[in-house]
Amino acid sequence: MHSRWPRLDGLAYGGDYNPEQWPEEVWTEDVALMREAGVTLVSVGVFSWGMLEPRPGEYEFGWLDRVLGLLHDAGIAVDLGTPTVAAPPWFLLHHPQARPVTREGLPYGNGTRQVHCPSSPAYAAASSAITRELALRYGGHPAVVMWHVNNEYGAPLGECYCETSAAAFRDWLRARYGDVATLNDRWGAAFWSQRYGHWDEIEPPRTSGTVVNPALRLDYARFSNDALLDCFIRERDILHELAPGIPVTTNFMATNCKSVDYWRWAPEVDVISNDNYLVAERSDNYLELAMSADMTRSLAGGGPWLLMEHSTSAVSWQPRNIAKRPGEMRRNSLAHVARGADGALFFQWRASRYGAEKHHSAMLPQGGTDTRIWREVVGLGAELAGLSALAGTVVESDIAILWDWESWWAQELEWRPSAALGYLDRIRAWYEASWRAGLTADFASPGADLSRYRLVIAPSLYLTTEAAAANLGAYVAGGGTLLAGCFSGIVDAWDRVHPGPYPGALRDVLGVTVEEWLPLREGERVTLTWEESAPAAVSGATVWTEAVKLAGGKPVAWYADGPAAGGPAVTRNDLGEGQAWYVSAATDQPATAALLAAVCEAAGVSAPARPAAGAAWPRDLEITRRAGPAGRFVTLINHGSDTAEILLGGRLVSVPSGEVRVIEGDTA
Amino acid sequence: MHSRWPRLDGLAYGGDYNPEQWPEEVWTEDVALMREAGVTLVSVGVFSWGMLEPRPGEYEFGWLDRVLGLLHDAGIAVDLGTPTVAAPPWFLLHHPQARPVTREGLPYGNGTRQVHCPSSPAYAAASSAITRELALRYGGHPAVVMWHVNNEYGAPLGECYCETSAAAFRDWLRARYGDVATLNDRWGAAFWSQRYGHWDEIEPPRTSGTVVNPALRLDYARFSNDALLDCFIRERDILHELAPGIPVTTNFMATNCKSVDYWRWAPEVDVISNDNYLVAERSDNYLELAMSADMTRSLAGGGPWLLMEHSTSAVSWQPRNIAKRPGEMRRNSLAHVARGADGALFFQWRASRYGAEKHHSAMLPQGGTDTRIWREVVGLGAELAGLSALAGTVVESDIAILWDWESWWAQELEWRPSAALGYLDRIRAWYEASWRAGLTADFASPGADLSRYRLVIAPSLYLTTEAAAANLGAYVAGGGTLLAGCFSGIVDAWDRVHPGPYPGALRDVLGVTVEEWLPLREGERVTLTWEESAPAAVSGATVWTEAVKLAGGKPVAWYADGPAAGGPAVTRNDLGEGQAWYVSAATDQPATAALLAAVCEAAGVSAPARPAAGAAWPRDLEITRRAGPAGRFVTLINHGSDTAEILLGGRLVSVPSGEVRVIEGDTA
Amino acid sequence: MHSRWPRLDGLAYGGDYNPEQWPEEVWTEDVALMREAGVTLVSVGVFSWGMLEPRPGEYEFGWLDRVLGLLHDAGIAVDLGTPTVAAPPWFLLHHPQARPVTREGLPYGNGTRQVHCPSSPAYAAASSAITRELALRYGGHPAVVMWHVNNEYGAPLGECYCETSAAAFRDWLRARYGDVATLNDRWGAAFWSQRYGHWDEIEPPRTSGTVVNPALRLDYARFSNDALLDCFIRERDILHELAPGIPVTTNFMATNCKSVDYWRWAPEVDVISNDNYLVAERSDNYLELAMSADMTRSLAGGGPWLLMEHSTSAVSWQPRNIAKRPGEMRRNSLAHVARGADGALFFQWRASRYGAEKHHSAMLPQGGTDTRIWREVVGLGAELAGLSALAGTVVESDIAILWDWESWWAQELEWRPSAALGYLDRIRAWYEASWRAGLTADFASPGADLSRYRLVIAPSLYLTTEAAAANLGAYVAGGGTLLAGCFSGIVDAWDRVHPGPYPGALRDVLGVTVEEWLPLREGERVTLTWEESAPAAVSGATVWTEAVKLAGGKPVAWYADGPAAGGPAVTRNDLGEGQAWYVSAATDQPATAALLAAVCEAAGVSAPARPAAGAAWPRDLEITRRAGPAGRFVTLINHGSDTAEILLGGRLVSVPSGEVRVIEGDTA
Repeated sequence: MHSRWPRLDGLAYGGDYNPEQWPEEVWTEDVALMREAGVTLVSVGVFSWGMLEPRPGEYEFGWLDRVLGLLHDAGIAVDLGTPTVAAPPWFLLHHPQARPVTREGLPYGNGTRQVHCPSSPAYAAASSAITRELALRYGGHPAVVMWHVNNEYGAPLGECYCETSAAAFRDWLRARYGDVATLNDRWGAAFWSQRYGHWDEIEPPRTSGTVVNPALRLDYARFSNDALLDCFIRERDILHELAPGIPVTTNFMATNCKSVDYWRWAPEVDVISNDNYLVAERSDNYLELAMSADMTRSLAGGGPWLLMEHSTSAVSWQPRNIAKRPGEMRRNSLAHVARGADGALFFQWRASRYGAEKHHSAMLPQGGTDTRIWREVVGLGAELAGLSALAGTVVESDIAILWDWESWWAQELEWRPSAALGYLDRIRAWYEASWRAGLTADFASPGADLSRYRLVIAPSLYLTTEAAAANLGAYVAGGGTLLAGCFSGIVDAWDRVHPGPYPGALRDVLGVTVEEWLPLREGERVTLTWEESAPAAVSGATVWTEAVKLAGGKPVAWYADGPAAGGPAVTRNDLGEGQAWYVSAATDQPATAALLAAVCEAAGVSAPARPAAGAAWPRDLEITRRAGPAGRFVTLINHGSDTAEILLGGRLVSVPSGEVRVIEGDTA
Repeated sequence: MHSRWPRLDGLAYGGDYNPEQWPEEVWTEDVALMREAGVTLVSVGVFSWGMLEPRPGEYEFGWLDRVLGLLHDAGIAVDLGTPTVAAPPWFLLHHPQARPVTREGLPYGNGTRQVHCPSSPAYAAASSAITRELALRYGGHPAVVMWHVNNEYGAPLGECYCETSAAAFRDWLRARYGDVATLNDRWGAAFWSQRYGHWDEIEPPRTSGTVVNPALRLDYARFSNDALLDCFIRERDILHELAPGIPVTTNFMATNCKSVDYWRWAPEVDVISNDNYLVAERSDNYLELAMSADMTRSLAGGGPWLLMEHSTSAVSWQPRNIAKRPGEMRRNSLAHVARGADGALFFQWRASRYGAEKHHSAMLPQGGTDTRIWREVVGLGAELAGLSALAGTVVESDIAILWDWESWWAQELEWRPSAALGYLDRIRAWYEASWRAGLTADFASPGADLSRYRLVIAPSLYLTTEAAAANLGAYVAGGGTLLAGCFSGIVDAWDRVHPGPYPGALRDVLGVTVEEWLPLREGERVTLTWEESAPAAVSGATVWTEAVKLAGGKPVAWYADGPAAGGPAVTRNDLGEGQAWYVSAATDQPATAALLAAVCEAAGVSAPARPAAGAAWPRDLEITRRAGPAGRFVTLINHGSDTAEILLGGRLVSVPSGEVRVIEGDTA
Repeated sequence: MHSRWPRLDGLAYGGDYNPEQWPEEVWTEDVALMREAGVTLVSVGVFSWGMLEPRPGEYEFGWLDRVLGLLHDAGIAVDLGTPTVAAPPWFLLHHPQARPVTREGLPYGNGTRQVHCPSSPAYAAASSAITRELALRYGGHPAVVMWHVNNEYGAPLGECYCETSAAAFRDWLRARYGDVATLNDRWGAAFWSQRYGHWDEIEPPRTSGTVVNPALRLDYARFSNDALLDCFIRERDILHELAPGIPVTTNFMATNCKSVDYWRWAPEVDVISNDNYLVAERSDNYLELAMSADMTRSLAGGGPWLLMEHSTSAVSWQPRNIAKRPGEMRRNSLAHVARGADGALFFQWRASRYGAEKHHSAMLPQGGTDTRIWREVVGLGAELAGLSALAGTVVESDIAILWDWESWWAQELEWRPSAALGYLDRIRAWYEASWRAGLTADFASPGADLSRYRLVIAPSLYLTTEAAAANLGAYVAGGGTLLAGCFSGIVDAWDRVHPGPYPGALRDVLGVTVEEWLPLREGERVTLTWEESAPAAVSGATVWTEAVKLAGGKPVAWYADGPAAGGPAVTRNDLGEGQAWYVSAATDQPATAALLAAVCEAAGVSAPARPAAGAAWPRDLEITRRAGPAGRFVTLINHGSDTAEILLGGRLVSVPSGEVRVIEGDTA
């Protein structure tokens, strides 16, 4: 019925375009400058509900007709927004019961975006109506190549605690569990006298005197994700029905949105697209960027995806919005492309003169075209046009890293062994080690088919269902190498501890038991060694250690000191055709890198290039490959301050500081 | 009518037992393992309301009958809970007006424990009903030796601000003051236009634009304490009436619950029991433990008490839940016993698989019996059985430290001279000095009979009633030695400054006036010296100094620098047969220790042992005595990393690091 | 109709007098001690509503009659309060809808001061009634020389978000904009779908899921200021009508109250008066004091004003309320006088025994008259009597510094380029530099007539209206020297970015464009040099730099490093007869001082004294001049620890540490 990719050639280039903020005379200039910059695709109307439907049921489409016409005449394709993230002010006046409510019980005010409860029937009706009107009017417009539904679902509001949500939650539970007795069992309702006799007794997990049932928290997170996903599906289905053939996207925030489980969303979306904004204070934020891009590609099943938003320079919502340095925007954009994006778009085309985001950078800054940013924007447009051969090629990855939103939710509830052991911290540690080793990682769900990977890392899998444990066991038995990080395998989908010694669901796969968790004090640090009683240090760990006992596994590294001193810190278990490693500590970067090198060697995984003779691998060099019928392309991006030299296919390649090289040809 | 101590032999051992969380087949294993561990007493049913009364007025007692039968058959006594701390989910559905409300005006949600307003009539009815049912059914059960009413009153909720509470507060005020004019006088209502014309004008001290009348705050703290105490008394009276002969307890949190004035509770409770959880990050948390135990003993009037809960290893509600090291649980348990506990119980018997506390350590860990913890639990059970002679003996104390909840409340209201001068900080400073000097301290209320003590320390007594001041004056005049800490004697029971120069109520006793408080800046530190113009330093002080003028007292130490430089820092006043010392600064540990040594010498107080020849007293050695008809026992616990040696009754006693020695015989 | 200055001779001396807190026998002692201390003026009844109107409409004036009689008999003048800041408890009971509500939606409680919504009709009625009664009864009383309306408008509550306020806000908007289309334009309502169709759709900017429209925030700040001002004007008009001839004041908190735009208040007030409380932790808080005094004088149009409240020693509401050192109160009081105050009053006369402020210092401390504070109070009274010639003289100022509450509001909304760039920080930096250079600064509104100043500094003028820009341009063209600080000229009155390159409204005046803001990272620091490629450092900057391009202006200093390295940091533009300097970085103290010296030299501004031969200017010496028909007086206050020596009119003047010298005669 509908294509999974928009009618676009080469790599898309452009950004959010909000013409409703400008008088019409500016539109002409916009389109001319877009052409100068090589813009091929713009997202239009994402926040325009109030301009399209100024009063309930009264529509003003004329301005949008003219905008689309201008763009189409200029050969610029349109990703047309359903503007449903920001209901106009009339909405809450007419539907006060649709107002979102915080966990503390406070209603949110108007005067901003997302002023609706996701479960509100009034919102469902109003958002469906405007979506239907847009589909009918523009579904056949030649400029429209894609629908952009809503915007960044889950931010700022991932959860609502109003009475409407409470009732919807009870319906959701009834559908999930059938009867209250089953719910009581799953939720461990015997604890603290929480046994339910009737669905009506159930409330959302509102702020309480002390900790709320963790299973209730988890199910509310699932329900909230589903409530948002239902909003998306409702609009998508309207669009599919009324405007067949036009693919639908909604912009994700891949690794930056805790409240949305994108593994559940990805199959529902025609085109995977992503927004990526960096933590400006961090000078190594290209690591974050890579992680976000790899996750987006993984959500797209390894196929192409779109970078829907990033910034040309500073954002405006961080404490200190550091501007990007010359060349940095280019490196950012090309890094996304190198990791599978078939287009790089920005928020936004022209900097707003007013509103909450006017100090956010744009393709066309407040200062106009005589600016560094504009010149770089034009340059990038030309460069992307020259790289159109990359479009449609597929990224080659080396390993998989497991990522699971449910485990993230569960691990970071209150009353955990150590609040200092963060879910993302462990993911980032292993991701960074693999990036710096020159490897490209896919992300995968714990239940996914992993058989095509030689190495799978599960840095942080506190919540491990029995099905996931079985999947991982089968993967290892079938010849795979699994490396599991500390505090994994502990609970089931309702935060119930798996019976028997830790690590519960993964005990048999890993061949160890953990007698006790030994979290470290603030500032405490322990040393890991390769030998039981020798000084060859793997290096250190902080935050977390464990008292590990071998149960089939063999020791790989030892605790030299700390509360687990003398015990195994890292183990390896031979299982079937494969191996399962266990790293029981929150290792620091040196230790993580050393352990990654060891497990890669065991698994037969290696980087696609080699260090130059007598030199170390340049740790700030990004290397990725895309390949397809059109050829094979290696992208090298040097984020460091020195020239990087490597051997690629036996040839010495040199990349100056800050530079990017896209090398075509079979370099393996 | 009812005994004040349960039918128990020797030292009790056991923990909270929550069989409702487990299938019945596990119960048999539980009881067998309890016997293996030497368990003699378990608390049952503390959170079981939802399992006992699944629908209002419908009871299910069969499972509890079977549990009690199993335990009784195994010779294990039961401390049976009234489960009233955690109303089932049906309660708030049927009684929405019973929902607690925060000071900010936010209602609390369901899905956890303590979801009721303490002043709620609906809660009074429902909690009385289940208590009555339990008393009728189990009052004569042979296993039941004690009632465990509710749980940790005051936590998490010490105060509720709902309309029901507001009305109850007005009733409480009417009963206390009789007429509004008296209330206006006590509350200083002339300030900021707060004169009341009618009771109905009075509200709880809700969050306001700025500081609320401190006397209103204090009376609300008193009212809130009384509201909780009324809940306890209501259940206790039912149990006494329907189950005569079975003593009643409720578990205190002696020094760790600001909202409950245990001096007012202790006379209402048959058996004083306490829960003690340590701050895991602190390696010297044995000081806290000792303080908590000494307070509990003091609440018990020096008689025996029960350690109702502590942990075998880590708890789960602190930021980093550091596990106890091997031997640490044993030292903790025996330290409680050494300070008067006739039993050591844990939360909980078997680690939960689900709920908010599943990651809390237990006697039987998730890992089962092949664990360090289980082995230590079994060892401790055997050791306690061997120490049964200690049961019923009485702790010998050396000094008294004054502790007053009302002064704590008053001192820590807003708008004080220095928010950095904490009530507990000063208590802890003097407590630590006495612990490290080998002394055992009782805690006492400022109005208590102090005549049996040679030395009484009042580290922090900002609120000092005229009655308390007269009591302290009489104590000194009768030959006692009083040491009062800075910022004492300032206000009366309604936070009204005593007329005339500071220290108001204590001016005459101490023989000084304080012209001005001289709080120090962040990081500022002053030096105290023994002579007016000589360098012999007592050592330092931070946070607080005062401009002291002698008014009969004599200087003991001087400020060498800081804003009070040249003035007296510590004074001594001879009054009748005794002495009253005043320490006007927030002294650091060296200064506090030196001053304690000086005042002890003056008062004729000395430790029960001496340092080994040529050695200093081992500062990490805990020493206590219990004595009774069965004999006299000195307990030595070495918390340090070196072997400790002391002279006990002329005999050299050596205690290795981490070890405990219980020495019987007259060692004085 | 009414005089603009009260019937007072010489310099007023006294404080808040709250006799309602004391029995009548104390009043006689009070008056006798006031005479001993030289008190000439007291503020009476500021918080006495509850004592004057104990029940609605029932008045008790007898006690106030007696107090005023006693004071008048002793020759002490009265500044009589309208007690409307603190409604009695009956007010909220009878008018629950008048309760203030926070931005989060939480109603505030009773039991404190300011329990009313400023827009409440019930409050308007009740406060008008008591004001009318007071005016009628005391308007002709010979002791009453001034009315003290309310107290510190804007603190603690500057804004209320209740439904009454919401309706009043809509009325205010309707009056301001006439139609919704105009409002939509000003507010940039096209952004995020905020176009309004009807006034009723508008809500106050309550807490929301994310950032609220900044123009809505700004207008709510304006509305809230106006709502308070309306309260003042309502009472003032009653007093003017019923008690003609008696001037009206209300006590400002000049530089310490963000929510009140005193530029709009000053013209409405007969006598400008101010409360000044210092940040006790800061040892250089005499800088704050001077800034506050200079602002108050500026609000008074350069004429005399009253220091209505300051403290004799510690306050009670800061975290650590450091007591003033001997002599410090005197220096504080005389510094206010030196900067134009014709009187120095304190909060309060006699320390309260109860209530929220009993630990606040007073003229008569809890310790009575045998105290350092009392002796200093008596000494200061005598000293001020000896300085009566200063009364009515006018301060001579050297420069003007621009201050704009609207720019403060706008700059510190959410989502700014750098939250670390604080409005006050930049003001303080330039103020301190001028203070330490011996200059006296006036503060001025950006729209004020600046023609009498040789140098005007605009440290922080993010919001610059076109009118203000024109005013500044005309000032420069007419021969003035303007120095503008970084991030100025950016937005209009609705936070809309001025079209074209930054600095928008000031681009032409300054002769530069700013291509990009380059905020610095936490801890990052850059160096400024006087030459493009030479090491002569102006010194450093943190937080903020900019990419500056010359557009007519000439470079004055350069960025030696950092993200703007190599670009101009400071520029100078010759425009008409004058110069406009631009400082694009957040300069540190050395750099700010060096740039101030340079611009002063260019503008022909110099201090009124010179350093002693061979010495540097003593940086902790305060120097100010007052002049009038009675003569010319230079006040020198040495806040440093060494004796300060300077050449004043060619004569060497020496001021010991901590001392004050008032030198009469023409010293220029």
